[in-house]
Amino acid sequence: MKSLEEARELWFSRFPPQGMVGMEEVPTLEAAGRVTAAPVMARRSSPAAHQAAMDGFAVPAAATFGATPENPGRLHLGREAFPVNTGHLMPPGTDAVIMVEQIPDPEADPIVVEAPVFPWQYVRRVGEDLVRGEMVLAEGSEISPWAQGALLAAGVLRVPVRRRPRVAIIPTGSELVPAADLEPELAAGRRPEFNSVILAGLVVEAGGLPQVQDIVPDDLERLIAALQKALTAADLVLINAGSSAGTEDYTYQAVATLGQVLVHGVAMMPGKPTLLGVAADKPVIGNPGYPVSAVLSFEQFAGPLIAGMAGKRWQVRPSLTVHPAQNLPSRPGLTEFIRVTLGRVGDKVIATPLPRGAGAITSLVRADGLLTIPSLSEGLEEDRPVAAELLVAPEEIDGTLVVLGSHDNALDLLATLLRRREARLRLSSGHVGSLGGLMALRQGRAHLGGCHLLDPETNTYNISFIQRHLAGVPLKLINLAWRQQGLMVAPGNPKNLLGLKDLARPGVRFINRQRGAGTRLLLDILLKEEGLTAGAIQGYAREEYTHMAVAVNVFSGTADAGLGILAAARALELDFIPLRPERYDLVVPETTFADARFQVLLEVIRSAPFREAATALGGYDLKDCGRIIWQQ
Amino acid sequence: MKSLEEARELWFSRFPPQGMVGMEEVPTLEAAGRVTAAPVMARRSSPAAHQAAMDGFAVPAAATFGATPENPGRLHLGREAFPVNTGHLMPPGTDAVIMVEQIPDPEADPIVVEAPVFPWQYVRRVGEDLVRGEMVLAEGSEISPWAQGALLAAGVLRVPVRRRPRVAIIPTGSELVPAADLEPELAAGRRPEFNSVILAGLVVEAGGLPQVQDIVPDDLERLIAALQKALTAADLVLINAGSSAGTEDYTYQAVATLGQVLVHGVAMMPGKPTLLGVAADKPVIGNPGYPVSAVLSFEQFAGPLIAGMAGKRWQVRPSLTVHPAQNLPSRPGLTEFIRVTLGRVGDKVIATPLPRGAGAITSLVRADGLLTIPSLSEGLEEDRPVAAELLVAPEEIDGTLVVLGSHDNALDLLATLLRRREARLRLSSGHVGSLGGLMALRQGRAHLGGCHLLDPETNTYNISFIQRHLAGVPLKLINLAWRQQGLMVAPGNPKNLLGLKDLARPGVRFINRQRGAGTRLLLDILLKEEGLTAGAIQGYAREEYTHMAVAVNVFSGTADAGLGILAAARALELDFIPLRPERYDLVVPETTFADARFQVLLEVIRSAPFREAATALGGYDLKDCGRIIWQQ
Repeated sequence: MKSLEEARELWFSRFPPQGMVGMEEVPTLEAAGRVTAAPVMARRSSPAAHQAAMDGFAVPAAATFGATPENPGRLHLGREAFPVNTGHLMPPGTDAVIMVEQIPDPEADPIVVEAPVFPWQYVRRVGEDLVRGEMVLAEGSEISPWAQGALLAAGVLRVPVRRRPRVAIIPTGSELVPAADLEPELAAGRRPEFNSVILAGLVVEAGGLPQVQDIVPDDLERLIAALQKALTAADLVLINAGSSAGTEDYTYQAVATLGQVLVHGVAMMPGKPTLLGVAADKPVIGNPGYPVSAVLSFEQFAGPLIAGMAGKRWQVRPSLTVHPAQNLPSRPGLTEFIRVTLGRVGDKVIATPLPRGAGAITSLVRADGLLTIPSLSEGLEEDRPVAAELLVAPEEIDGTLVVLGSHDNALDLLATLLRRREARLRLSSGHVGSLGGLMALRQGRAHLGGCHLLDPETNTYNISFIQRHLAGVPLKLINLAWRQQGLMVAPGNPKNLLGLKDLARPGVRFINRQRGAGTRLLLDILLKEEGLTAGAIQGYAREEYTHMAVAVNVFSGTADAGLGILAAARALELDFIPLRPERYDLVVPETTFADARFQVLLEVIRSAPFREAATALGGYDLKDCGRIIWQQ
Repeated sequence: MKSLEEARELWFSRFPPQGMVGMEEVPTLEAAGRVTAAPVMARRSSPAAHQAAMDGFAVPAAATFGATPENPGRLHLGREAFPVNTGHLMPPGTDAVIMVEQIPDPEADPIVVEAPVFPWQYVRRVGEDLVRGEMVLAEGSEISPWAQGALLAAGVLRVPVRRRPRVAIIPTGSELVPAADLEPELAAGRRPEFNSVILAGLVVEAGGLPQVQDIVPDDLERLIAALQKALTAADLVLINAGSSAGTEDYTYQAVATLGQVLVHGVAMMPGKPTLLGVAADKPVIGNPGYPVSAVLSFEQFAGPLIAGMAGKRWQVRPSLTVHPAQNLPSRPGLTEFIRVTLGRVGDKVIATPLPRGAGAITSLVRADGLLTIPSLSEGLEEDRPVAAELLVAPEEIDGTLVVLGSHDNALDLLATLLRRREARLRLSSGHVGSLGGLMALRQGRAHLGGCHLLDPETNTYNISFIQRHLAGVPLKLINLAWRQQGLMVAPGNPKNLLGLKDLARPGVRFINRQRGAGTRLLLDILLKEEGLTAGAIQGYAREEYTHMAVAVNVFSGTADAGLGILAAARALELDFIPLRPERYDLVVPETTFADARFQVLLEVIRSAPFREAATALGGYDLKDCGRIIWQQ
């Protein structure tokens, strides 16, 4: 196991990318984005002949010398004066242009000239832009659309460019179904192969030509054959998955058989099972199988190598100073990459970590930025400023409203409608439970909270909790919806559960929500009302963080019942036993309420499209939707 | 004529881009870079079934309860224990994975388990990443490679995206030769058409689909017909050129005939002759004909509209604080865009303006940045900080050595070899004459100067000028080459010029260099030696700024002779009458000499490849090349 720095040092000194691929000549018309492999010289001057730089008449300047309004010159068309437009070639014998506006009657012949003009007035002379033999593009220049134009102007119709590095991608795994053959439903035991699609896209972005190979099943001989074949045509080979420590570790054996393993394991997370090797004098990378690991490993080793071979600059992402929303401990000796969402709250950009699991491709999709915890560090501290690499445009972050708190499917709906209303605005929602949302507001980590906390003492929602946790903070409580909570059960309700009492029956497995979730508080209240104890419920201690996660447990048979909202049950076509309508409110500090972005969100909340779409989700009562319930 | 702000306001309120094009469904495999036209929900959970998260054995956790090293559990393969690898589906009846490293003998059957495991240990449960019904991508998301992966993981095989806006590009002009039909040499009177290539590239970058139409000759009826046809298929029509004020102003008439002209002329430079209109309820833009104007006008009006239609964010370029190398006066009432090269000299980034002419496409190709002079301003002041839009990566600027001074073809050679030696380094050379280079060094606007100033008093090069203009500045004078100066004359020397004396013959037209150029000083010295006066030479007052520009005058017959270096004469295959070898030195302040980037340049200067390539250019004597001639 090498440190990330050691591994990179070893890799890039073994394969200095410049000069690894040769050049080819391509038509200038197809050269956009390519990189010149030699300095390119002009083959013609531009302009190639003197041109009029104004609309008017081309004349010999000498013919105008001495002209005055009293004693004008008279120039005959076709002899001493020729009508020209900007860009026209200068007729032989002429060396100046008189603007059409300065001729009293441009329709007359001869035209009347009332002032002398100097030679070369309003003439673009030969070579004014480019002189034959002059360098148009230096070696190593990326060809922009306007560079294409300059090349064509210079008579360069074919241009020497670096060949695009060919990158073979070999997916491995017996149970994988190729991305091209995917059906909406997969046969049991099969998994979709999509890492090759991600890697191919990243190869293109880096300037390479991906060559995705057929999936190789878990068989050493076949992997060796596939690698051998790939090495004949490719400049770099990526073998995806198969480089972890288990029985399928064929990548190691294949590379060791055909060449040499340079690094087996890199102290980075995600991305640890990266293998770096050489075979047939070509670089071979064993890329980890988890998609997030595959991407982050690619960015460290394959991407910069491909870009370097192509003569391109490996993309350095813009960075921004952010404040972590929580402590992020990390094991020293390991460089860790944390995907975060970002939102500007007050004068800080708050970085909220996404799940760290390397299998969670959505954590990359949802990420606005990437934090790096260096290998010597024990982690990042809450609220202590740190640099984040940006995965989105900086303007996205300024347009983001951050809502933290309880999960509700209507928030996704709001996000969609908000963006549709104003493209620069985004709603980023983090699911930390109702109480978690109130804490986040207190610490200035969110613009608004989503909350449905029932106080059993007062039988009111949210207000007493706000008074306890956000005392003195000026804010408004705005209703989003009343929603139906109930038991989600498998389709057809096979265990015939009719209410909470049935959860105490032997053989009934429940799945609960995490501490601090409003739904869990509701459960506790309802259990108390029914005279049941937590201990009586099998699975009371099993926690999930969202309604949908609970629904999935029921859907997949891991649990027989969970408490949640109708919308979640509907999404997975589960049966639903309604128990209690509850109020879901947004907690909006005055600083947010005064924010123009929130006012747009409020318009959306109060709009007909939101009401209609929420109604269609099911289980929502919008009688109070958008109403200010209470303020302090 | 509208101000840029008024024109933009009018344009984008007439055509709010969102919703201008509809949606289409494309295969997820081909969706990279597209923008979702609706929220995209997961069709399957991911994982779709429980998966092993480690290599090892899948077991029912309950079967391990109570296991200790003294009293281990024994699990039989195929009944209670199943070998699995990371990513494998969990066999029925199992709910936990024991890592292979924790089994004393993984080859045994039964395997021995020495500690209990808890349910769901090392298992990726159904929906851990994505739950069926959950939103994978919000509406308006640009699809990254990893988003493609997430969509495939979620069983989304086709995805609704914004249709790419179709942009018709109509080039106009009777004398134009289509880019696709260009030959290295053009027939007399023909000009290459390349603006459509530039615009098509910019359309692609903005997210549109370019449809380049046949060139329309200068004929109103045919332009009307072409516009009418384009309007049937395109979402936006760009007519290139033809919108200036002259007889070819058919764009105005065509748009007015088929629709309405909204803006005719925008107070921006370059880009003034922009026309904005509407026909068949579609946006039509008359784009100026000069390539730089075409690009800058595109960036104000067409680009943001196309990006908006495509649902993409119009690229905001990163900006950087720079210091103009000179005053940049500008006419109030006009928004002016200045192309500049950038280099970090000391602690400032110096912006050196490129030629302002809108016809000079090379000024865009060579530009590192763009300065904007707002319409109310009278210009930018020398050295006063101002924001520049960056056209290159910020790292490029840190890798740039700025040489200002006399022009020499060997500098292009150095630039090529420097970049070849170290890809991050660039040599940016500005041609301001030898004295101009010394002034720039005094003002801290350049890293080094290029200088060949002969002092007739002492008959030495450069030193006395440095002592006068850079007194007290610690620096080294390093020789680049001795080079041959002489008369450039047309091939075959038709006027039979044998020396300077012949320049005084009637009918011989000379072309001179600008004041402060070393070559001009040399001319004055040589004339004095020969007993000639400036007045005796026809054309003494005609000035050009580079050797190549002088050569072009001779090449195109505008002059019969000019003084310059052999390399320039060779580039255009002119005849050359050698007059005097002269020393061309680099003036290197100690601050530059100590800079690691300069040391690389010095290595290149002293390298065999430079000597060989300079020798091949012709006219160079490298006996002192790289030698420190003098220092102060």
